[in-house]
Amino acid sequence: MAKSDIKTIGVVTSGGDAPGMNAALRAVVRACSYYKLRCKGIRLGYEGLITNNIVELGPRSVSNIINRGGTILKTARCAEFRTEEGRKKAYENIKKNEIDALIVIGGDGSFTGAHNFEKEFGIPTLGVPGTIDNDIFGTDNTIGYDTALNTVINAIDKIRDTATSHNRMFFIEVMGRDAGFIALNSGIASGAQDILIPEKKDEIEELFEAIQRGEKAGKLSNIIVVAEGEELGGVYDLAKFTKMKYPKYDIRVTVLGHIQRGGEPTCADRVLASRLGVAAVEGLMEGRSSVMAGIRSNNVVFTPFDEAIVKQNVINNELIRIADILAR
Amino acid sequence: MAKSDIKTIGVVTSGGDAPGMNAALRAVVRACSYYKLRCKGIRLGYEGLITNNIVELGPRSVSNIINRGGTILKTARCAEFRTEEGRKKAYENIKKNEIDALIVIGGDGSFTGAHNFEKEFGIPTLGVPGTIDNDIFGTDNTIGYDTALNTVINAIDKIRDTATSHNRMFFIEVMGRDAGFIALNSGIASGAQDILIPEKKDEIEELFEAIQRGEKAGKLSNIIVVAEGEELGGVYDLAKFTKMKYPKYDIRVTVLGHIQRGGEPTCADRVLASRLGVAAVEGLMEGRSSVMAGIRSNNVVFTPFDEAIVKQNVINNELIRIADILAR
Amino acid sequence: MAKSDIKTIGVVTSGGDAPGMNAALRAVVRACSYYKLRCKGIRLGYEGLITNNIVELGPRSVSNIINRGGTILKTARCAEFRTEEGRKKAYENIKKNEIDALIVIGGDGSFTGAHNFEKEFGIPTLGVPGTIDNDIFGTDNTIGYDTALNTVINAIDKIRDTATSHNRMFFIEVMGRDAGFIALNSGIASGAQDILIPEKKDEIEELFEAIQRGEKAGKLSNIIVVAEGEELGGVYDLAKFTKMKYPKYDIRVTVLGHIQRGGEPTCADRVLASRLGVAAVEGLMEGRSSVMAGIRSNNVVFTPFDEAIVKQNVINNELIRIADILAR
Amino acid sequence: MAKSDIKTIGVVTSGGDAPGMNAALRAVVRACSYYKLRCKGIRLGYEGLITNNIVELGPRSVSNIINRGGTILKTARCAEFRTEEGRKKAYENIKKNEIDALIVIGGDGSFTGAHNFEKEFGIPTLGVPGTIDNDIFGTDNTIGYDTALNTVINAIDKIRDTATSHNRMFFIEVMGRDAGFIALNSGIASGAQDILIPEKKDEIEELFEAIQRGEKAGKLSNIIVVAEGEELGGVYDLAKFTKMKYPKYDIRVTVLGHIQRGGEPTCADRVLASRLGVAAVEGLMEGRSSVMAGIRSNNVVFTPFDEAIVKQNVINNELIRIADILAR
Repeated sequence: MAKSDIKTIGVVTSGGDAPGMNAALRAVVRACSYYKLRCKGIRLGYEGLITNNIVELGPRSVSNIINRGGTILKTARCAEFRTEEGRKKAYENIKKNEIDALIVIGGDGSFTGAHNFEKEFGIPTLGVPGTIDNDIFGTDNTIGYDTALNTVINAIDKIRDTATSHNRMFFIEVMGRDAGFIALNSGIASGAQDILIPEKKDEIEELFEAIQRGEKAGKLSNIIVVAEGEELGGVYDLAKFTKMKYPKYDIRVTVLGHIQRGGEPTCADRVLASRLGVAAVEGLMEGRSSVMAGIRSNNVVFTPFDEAIVKQNVINNELIRIADILAR
Repeated sequence: MAKSDIKTIGVVTSGGDAPGMNAALRAVVRACSYYKLRCKGIRLGYEGLITNNIVELGPRSVSNIINRGGTILKTARCAEFRTEEGRKKAYENIKKNEIDALIVIGGDGSFTGAHNFEKEFGIPTLGVPGTIDNDIFGTDNTIGYDTALNTVINAIDKIRDTATSHNRMFFIEVMGRDAGFIALNSGIASGAQDILIPEKKDEIEELFEAIQRGEKAGKLSNIIVVAEGEELGGVYDLAKFTKMKYPKYDIRVTVLGHIQRGGEPTCADRVLASRLGVAAVEGLMEGRSSVMAGIRSNNVVFTPFDEAIVKQNVINNELIRIADILAR
Repeated sequence: MAKSDIKTIGVVTSGGDAPGMNAALRAVVRACSYYKLRCKGIRLGYEGLITNNIVELGPRSVSNIINRGGTILKTARCAEFRTEEGRKKAYENIKKNEIDALIVIGGDGSFTGAHNFEKEFGIPTLGVPGTIDNDIFGTDNTIGYDTALNTVINAIDKIRDTATSHNRMFFIEVMGRDAGFIALNSGIASGAQDILIPEKKDEIEELFEAIQRGEKAGKLSNIIVVAEGEELGGVYDLAKFTKMKYPKYDIRVTVLGHIQRGGEPTCADRVLASRLGVAAVEGLMEGRSSVMAGIRSNNVVFTPFDEAIVKQNVINNELIRIADILAR
Repeated sequence: MAKSDIKTIGVVTSGGDAPGMNAALRAVVRACSYYKLRCKGIRLGYEGLITNNIVELGPRSVSNIINRGGTILKTARCAEFRTEEGRKKAYENIKKNEIDALIVIGGDGSFTGAHNFEKEFGIPTLGVPGTIDNDIFGTDNTIGYDTALNTVINAIDKIRDTATSHNRMFFIEVMGRDAGFIALNSGIASGAQDILIPEKKDEIEELFEAIQRGEKAGKLSNIIVVAEGEELGGVYDLAKFTKMKYPKYDIRVTVLGHIQRGGEPTCADRVLASRLGVAAVEGLMEGRSSVMAGIRSNNVVFTPFDEAIVKQNVINNELIRIADILAR
């Protein structure tokens, strides 16, 4: 489809919600308005395409949402969109609504859906990375990641008050099923004695070394940050195992859980979302599709879905090194 | 002991830490300085009395701590202080340090210890209620309670972003082993669909009624707040049981855990702690002992330990009524 | 009007906005729904009565607003409502909308308007105290006051970082044109060296004494909190005057300004607003009018407008005494 | 000096304080400990060098400071260090303390001082960029900048509650004497209708266009963000001038002031500070000097002081373009 042919853009938030999705949505809607395109919001993720739960969005529809967590379009994981029949219904509703191209704000699962949909029905799709996990290739940061990091360290700061007051050791589980980004960065920022992430090996020995090193160094309380995807088993097992090895420690566990997904987006997430939302509209207008908009080294870049979905952001090994130096 | 005989006051933080303990400590130290008394800080709760871990505190020792969570004196639960031998050692150290009277910042367990100690050794003791649970008779609010409430509602606000975006039901466990104060107030303040507390009966039926009522009223997401002491079993069981009854709901559980004990104290907690810290010093100077300082209807009152320990703050039934009206 | 005659309640937010107004509005709407009354929201304060800017409110209209600052009905000060003609138009629209009674969420200016309106036209009115200034007689706290206090101390905590790092003296102006509640409580809670409020006399001498005392005590940085209504002139003059007297101090001024009016309400404000919103509806149903709902010593009380408007909440002198003791 | 000769590193925080300086200091101290170097902290900026206000720092000296605003070493601007005599005294104290190299955490003024000092006395110096203004060449972000941005948007979010509730226009002055980074990013993130920064020209016309455009688009409230260095005169003049042109607007002004310098550092600032603190120690060990450590495109880079001081970070024009698109 040539760029001049796009008159109406559909926008959907899909997968797990992330702070900043509303800011991205606002940017898409305002950019459409700026370029005199119509914009239609699909509610409840891909489900809204299938059930024709679609609303017209004008610039005032997105007033005062830049600072709100969650997504006003709501989101869902949609099994039916993974079936051919489901996507067919979706296509019919896209036609019915005269949507010429689709912007998907979500994670790589959502991009896979968009990519397949484009291949089957020829509707140009463009992705905006919205997930707290930061595990998407093609952008330095995903929308929501910076907010989640700050939510985590604010929680750990509170827990540290108790850890220090009681000379306790706390195991704190943070999100990141497949990637240790949240654990590693929040662990450094909260002065963790050790950080356990899926990407590291031999962690239990390292953990015990870290604990002993802390003891020698005169540390009376300890924070251990554990990524939920950590391979040694859940954070409770780790705590039990540690207690067996070091019975004298007063050990507690906290699973931060869903607070990490919500909250008002940080400045960085709002700016990132604003830039990517505009870039998504402009990308479609320039004829791009099956790509994800991202920011690398402060520049907007577009990465083919194929690449964004298959490749992984990798942990910066320098951070692992730094974490170890600082926990002395 | 006549008031003129008090020359040195010892101060200890004991039991679980609570935000505002530092503000109370600061007030005790500054009031001592104002009245030209010496002040000695006992570290690590009653353990510091037994191990003679005691430091002189001047007004500059407590600079810039009014806004800090935890307690700079640290705290612990001390089994040895429950033995006669332990208390004897404590008494010897009190004599060695020329401490004439003792201010205990803590909960009712700590007050029981102080009370017994006074009965055995004649050292005047005075309590300041510091605990997030608000379960102490003789004061409208305990130090730390208001902060914990705000920590809880800020966490639930974040969770609500996700609940609303995904049309989910969240079960959220908050602290309050014996009392539903935190659950009831935070539940009202976060717009919970139902609130389960130890003080209410027939809760599971009420919960199911609340869920059905919410459904009829068109609510698509729900927050259920559960006090940890809730008698029906843990929050996970409640969630499972609800899922069995209402399989269509997408139900999640979050246990807020230790973040509730920490954080910077709110204004109300800092003012409360400041008032009670001064009142404690003045109370001892006026010859009071074996009492707890509290604030009721905005006035400082002193309640005998006997009463403070045995009686319970009771839940305001009007709040239960209000919670029900608002969840419509 | 007998209670059974009330079928529709109008609700308006009026005067300056305050955090918790939305929570109060939600409680009014939900209580109406609970008692099977209709509820109509008047937009933009009394102006909406005059321009017939009135909307039906159902329980879902107020979903997810309990945690939002400001007021979704918007508010304004309305000169026309102070004229007979204006009020006549208002009455006509009230009749047109079949509104039987009016709940006014606002300050004493708004209550005066309501009171006059009731006297002229016989429409029962009931007030809910919403203002950050806490200067209304008949309630221990007004809605928004606790939130404003916390906003102020969080701001001063930040400023203290700089004050301490640079050994500086900061003069910080907080709101409170007629009353020193915010200044006094936030001053105590932020460890201010002195607090200047309209209610105290001879303040400049006291200020200089406080500064000298701080110097003797070895304090290197100082926070001075000043209520905006302070009679000695603006905070800038005070700072200049102090600089002339103590040239060696590095003095800075910050006027906190409008951030004090906004923000998410605290738990205490949400609960207070929820209780008063329900009480307002129930009060009207019981036949009360020309009264304000308030909470004193944790009980709902109703105070005649005449009294609420004329009398003043008075500063607790004990707090002034405490503030002095703690600044040592 | 060959790298093997460095046995003791001095560290100083200088100039205006910035959140994250403590995290950087902690990283310097811990890295010294890791590499078995001694570390000495110079208090009160360069003044401490002149007055020999210098303390030994071990890894436990910096426990629990990673999350604190300000700087525990304190800071000052020091006129005497700009004189030859002052620097001579500084050198003598450096010798007396056996300090072999100096790490300066501060802004470009502090780097100029360090650079001159190194040229005169041959003490290797290395800079770490700590300032909220982000106006230092050689690093994508300075330490404290991300925190300041979040402080600003949280304040504006509160003000927006009032702006929206009252249909008002707010002029908000933020820091940035020479550079519009804070204004531009916080303006985008808070949905400002216009952003006035020193780098843009013809701003008053653009402002009036923005206001008219907002009016046409149906906006009832407006946020205008103004950098303090804005050339058209202070924010009060701008507001007055706008009021003359658009008398019907209800215009208010807020100067955010010193709250922007304080507060707990964000996760990004803590990680940045941690990385740069370690890099500074390692840089000196590798024989680098008269350079500043920075992070560009997620890699540590060292920029000669000559360059860092003379060159300027430039505003990203894409952000100006985005801001305009989003304010529709």
